Amino acid sequence: MPPTDHTGLEVLTYEECVERLENSQVGRLAFLADGEVQIFPVNYRWHDGSILFRTAPGTKLDAAHFKKVASFEIDGWDSVFQTGWSVVAKGLVKEIDPTEEMEGLGLRPWAGPGRDDWVRIRPDEVTGRKIS
Amino acid sequence: MPPTDHTGLEVLTYEECVERLENSQVGRLAFLADGEVQIFPVNYRWHDGSILFRTAPGTKLDAAHFKKVASFEIDGWDSVFQTGWSVVAKGLVKEIDPTEEMEGLGLRPWAGPGRDDWVRIRPDEVTGRKIS
Repeated sequence: MPPTDHTGLEVLTYEECVERLENSQVGRLAFLADGEVQIFPVNYRWHDGSILFRTAPGTKLDAAHFKKVASFEIDGWDSVFQTGWSVVAKGLVKEIDPTEEMEGLGLRPWAGPGRDDWVRIRPDEVTGRKIS
Repeated sequence: MPPTDHTGLEVLTYEECVERLENSQVGRLAFLADGEVQIFPVNYRWHDGSILFRTAPGTKLDAAHFKKVASFEIDGWDSVFQTGWSVVAKGLVKEIDPTEEMEGLGLRPWAGPGRDDWVRIRPDEVTGRKIS
């Protein structure tokens, strides 16, 4: 029997979470701003234990400037079988200068040009659950 | 030209947001708990201007008891065309007694049995954006 949480959902191992982070393309960045939880989908890459995405000056980048703690979520669903899973990574959001290796990842913001600032979340905590 | 936000994303009208809320099945509930942003996917129904889902006692229901403000997000993506959209609804999370009409909606928690408590978010604010 795989481990379950208090609500009966199967708990994913760290390795299973990382595998899903490697294989997904879009996640949701959530953090507190102006007293409310803000949520923004971003296309991202998992690289060297971190989440990387690119953005333009604005709310997401403000969070990076202030080194806020954010939660980053990915999930997958099958509405026919009514199953699904989710992975949440929590950590500081930080604006970074990309390394040559990062620039070689082919990370292009789907939302269009002008998104030249790189942001990294190096998570302190990665957890995942699935409907089993 | 449709209206855009400061980052160049197209802004959805309230009617377009509601249409997407009506036609989606899974969203993500995000709220502040224990000093961190918690995010949980739930299968839901849009009914009479509100988001409805069912849950078991635990973190989500605690938020409902405390009448916390939550953000609820849905989105859709096409990784080939690299386009996407998202809708965010913000409002108080409240535990409710379902009406007969609500019970007739066929809202069954994918995560399994024991999720007998009904929660409603009647949003004060519904916003949406898409990559155009």
